[in-house]
Amino acid sequence: MNKKVAIFDSSLRDGAQAEGISFSVEDKLKLLELFDEHGIGYIEAGNPGSNPKDLEFFARAKTIQLKQARLTAFGSTRRRDVRVEQDSNVQSLLLADTPVIAIFGKSWDFHVTDIIGTTLDENLAMIRETLAFFKARGKEVVYDAEHFFDGYKNNPDYAVRTLRAAVEGGADTLVLCDTNGGTFPSEVATIVAHIAGLFETPLGIHAHNDCGMAVANSVAAVENGARHVQGTYIGFGERCGNANLSTIIANLGVKRGYECLPPNQYRHITRVARHVAAISNVALSERMPYVGSSAFAHKGGMHIDGVNKAARSFEHIDPEQVGGQRRFLMSEVSGRRMILDKIWEVDPAITKDDPVTDRIMKRLKEMEHEGYQFEGAESSFELIVLKHLGKYRSFFDLVHFRIIGEQPAEGEYSASAIIKIKVDGKDEITAAEGDGPVHALDRALRKALETFYPELANAHLTDYKVRVINGKDATAAKVRVLLQSSDGDAVWTTIGVSTDIIEASWLALVDSIEYKLLKIRG
Amino acid sequence: MNKKVAIFDSSLRDGAQAEGISFSVEDKLKLLELFDEHGIGYIEAGNPGSNPKDLEFFARAKTIQLKQARLTAFGSTRRRDVRVEQDSNVQSLLLADTPVIAIFGKSWDFHVTDIIGTTLDENLAMIRETLAFFKARGKEVVYDAEHFFDGYKNNPDYAVRTLRAAVEGGADTLVLCDTNGGTFPSEVATIVAHIAGLFETPLGIHAHNDCGMAVANSVAAVENGARHVQGTYIGFGERCGNANLSTIIANLGVKRGYECLPPNQYRHITRVARHVAAISNVALSERMPYVGSSAFAHKGGMHIDGVNKAARSFEHIDPEQVGGQRRFLMSEVSGRRMILDKIWEVDPAITKDDPVTDRIMKRLKEMEHEGYQFEGAESSFELIVLKHLGKYRSFFDLVHFRIIGEQPAEGEYSASAIIKIKVDGKDEITAAEGDGPVHALDRALRKALETFYPELANAHLTDYKVRVINGKDATAAKVRVLLQSSDGDAVWTTIGVSTDIIEASWLALVDSIEYKLLKIRG
Repeated sequence: MNKKVAIFDSSLRDGAQAEGISFSVEDKLKLLELFDEHGIGYIEAGNPGSNPKDLEFFARAKTIQLKQARLTAFGSTRRRDVRVEQDSNVQSLLLADTPVIAIFGKSWDFHVTDIIGTTLDENLAMIRETLAFFKARGKEVVYDAEHFFDGYKNNPDYAVRTLRAAVEGGADTLVLCDTNGGTFPSEVATIVAHIAGLFETPLGIHAHNDCGMAVANSVAAVENGARHVQGTYIGFGERCGNANLSTIIANLGVKRGYECLPPNQYRHITRVARHVAAISNVALSERMPYVGSSAFAHKGGMHIDGVNKAARSFEHIDPEQVGGQRRFLMSEVSGRRMILDKIWEVDPAITKDDPVTDRIMKRLKEMEHEGYQFEGAESSFELIVLKHLGKYRSFFDLVHFRIIGEQPAEGEYSASAIIKIKVDGKDEITAAEGDGPVHALDRALRKALETFYPELANAHLTDYKVRVINGKDATAAKVRVLLQSSDGDAVWTTIGVSTDIIEASWLALVDSIEYKLLKIRG
Repeated sequence: MNKKVAIFDSSLRDGAQAEGISFSVEDKLKLLELFDEHGIGYIEAGNPGSNPKDLEFFARAKTIQLKQARLTAFGSTRRRDVRVEQDSNVQSLLLADTPVIAIFGKSWDFHVTDIIGTTLDENLAMIRETLAFFKARGKEVVYDAEHFFDGYKNNPDYAVRTLRAAVEGGADTLVLCDTNGGTFPSEVATIVAHIAGLFETPLGIHAHNDCGMAVANSVAAVENGARHVQGTYIGFGERCGNANLSTIIANLGVKRGYECLPPNQYRHITRVARHVAAISNVALSERMPYVGSSAFAHKGGMHIDGVNKAARSFEHIDPEQVGGQRRFLMSEVSGRRMILDKIWEVDPAITKDDPVTDRIMKRLKEMEHEGYQFEGAESSFELIVLKHLGKYRSFFDLVHFRIIGEQPAEGEYSASAIIKIKVDGKDEITAAEGDGPVHALDRALRKALETFYPELANAHLTDYKVRVINGKDATAAKVRVLLQSSDGDAVWTTIGVSTDIIEASWLALVDSIEYKLLKIRG
């Protein structure tokens, strides 16, 4: 059996219809290159007819030499009662100058009569003529049968006739769309199997996640003969999103031996997913299958025990197959084992019955109660262990800082900070300006410390996250600040919690600097 | 056919094993009452053997009069080579004093021999004897066949024998668990159908989401005879999470006529899901099926047109069936129609070709470019429309503010703010302290304004959200602040964006106050 499955990513088109997604042309070009490198077969990148900004994108995309992906423009069949050559949307699709055109048409009789208001026969002509128009111009044509499953359930004969019209027009692929996301996998399996028996043309699936089953619907379609899967790489799209391609590729490619990507690319799935999230400026759900930060994170004590004995006891695949990493989480559920592992990294001689182990546990519990979470802030956690084991030393004392913010701002910066610290008995007082109080404070502290510790010059903050812990108290709510720092080689993350965002940031900042100095000066 | 499906929520037990979830006893009691009111059949609330804090919960839970839910404690079969009466975990389950006990045991031969290290026969005895022990004490016993699908695939005979041992022990329900989350819906369908033919005892399903198909696996199990579904209400749990019950209940109950909840409870699904997220202190994914804020949000222009003609053209159910709400989003994709709708709310006489429409569009695009997003901040959006239509007036001018934060803090508060404003030519200068700079500023501004506008006294902030937009620039990154305000009746949300968190908060604060005053004073 042919196990090659064409992957068709629509992050740049259907994905752009998600709430909260807004791409610049630069974002779209970056994603185009990322998907091409990754070996995605088709990249649907826009609808030049409905979104003029997309034309700029297509013009610039032409200057990029794609390695293997086929760039695709998306549009509708011609409008009713218009000659295809005179339809402006059809014409604007030609302007995109892509090798592939995806055309969507109506399969659901109710949509034909009630939404676009035409006859069932005219709709068939719209499909056939539009596809023939593009085939005559040398395009590969992907036909998206919109609302196919709803149409099939309402009037199977007519739904099949729309596909036949597409085949007559020259469609290279017939994509069955669950546009409203309301179809169940058992229905998809039956309907796709039936259609696969009727046509020679390759079948595709385009699923939406309104019932939480878009991935399952896509898998069911492939199990029943589809060989083309549409979706978006991390699942964003209209309403509840499109089928999540990173999940589908891992399900089919890693677990079932289908060929979705070049063989060496499966290990990049996690990296690509995180990169897509970063470019699209969305948070990647920590629980997203395969690629989320919790996907291979174990918290239950029994699970951790089991995985230590044999990974497959609680993992359905080896995380490395998708470039992921196993993690054991620290928490009261996972218990002492995790804490001990950390302690042993610092001092292998400590036993689990040592009173210091208890003291560390107690301190962690207190801090968790205050709102700390050490998952994802392992460097702050390590500092606590070092402090209890007497392996910590302080590198400076804060005497005092004061930050001032004002509006209207005088000059370039709206905030300034004055800081006085003490190092080995010597005072240093200095000041700095910044974009906001935390920025000013960060700059002032580094300026003061670099006199004593020049190695801090190559350490800098690379990410800053603020999470309001208990939003209900509004501006007096507790906030949790996570700082990520890097010196070019290592990356470390620290945490601070307070009702005052300045104090929370300060705590995380101090940990960040102390961690760096402890690692160098010991 | 019997269409009654028992819903078994494990948010308080399996859900507590999710990364980032940490319940206090109070949180657990609140969720217990919420689920009971909602008509959830079984609430699995803890494992007294592995987590001593759970005993305190069960002691306090006894004082709550549940309307209909059956409280369930969770634990393992007895350990190998120990008499069941002498097993401490078994004993601690009795201490929970619940009407229902869920016992998990091993179905996968590899786990029996390699993880717990005993014989296949001893494992059968462990299952049979543990269940019999609880049955003899009058408990309803739910048997969780851990790793059932992996076990069945490896050694179907043995997997079936473990179920037989459970039936001999008196199991009231046999729950087939996909513990590692690696099974596909087509496999679940086949295996459940086979098992349903072998046993009279009701079957259940417990699915994990590692392949993104936990909902589909649960639905497939019910389609093939299962009548008991385990999961967590909004899907959190170990690794990629448990099966999402809110999605499953809507799929089965609203779309397929199964009885999962009392008939009047389906309309509360959205409210309950959001409440669970709030108590659990997790963000509810905006794209979560049925209950996410985007679940019925339309952005594409064609979709909005279609839904305006007939809702079912782009919606698989009526949002009201699950207590949700349809939303049309503002964006360049949805185009002018949305903007016009808003403009017409303010002034129905404006035409779409009026130059003011273009000016508003242009301003919105500029602001989006700066990082604004009006989805979810409709009040700030309305203010922009009012400003362009000349229906806005200013209620005060800022002359100057200065906020000061310091460490070590003197006294209770770490921050203070001085503010000078002008209202109708009169200056007012005042100051306030607060927990952090934004809190101090909020208090100072209100204090200054209440002299002129006493109606502000009953308006207050109810939520404060900070989102770092471009994290890569660390502390100088842009932040987006969303403020939610309420005066007891209305709730409104405003937005501010800046590289300075103080300025971003200030912008949102000013919008919040102006919105309130415009709505009252016009």
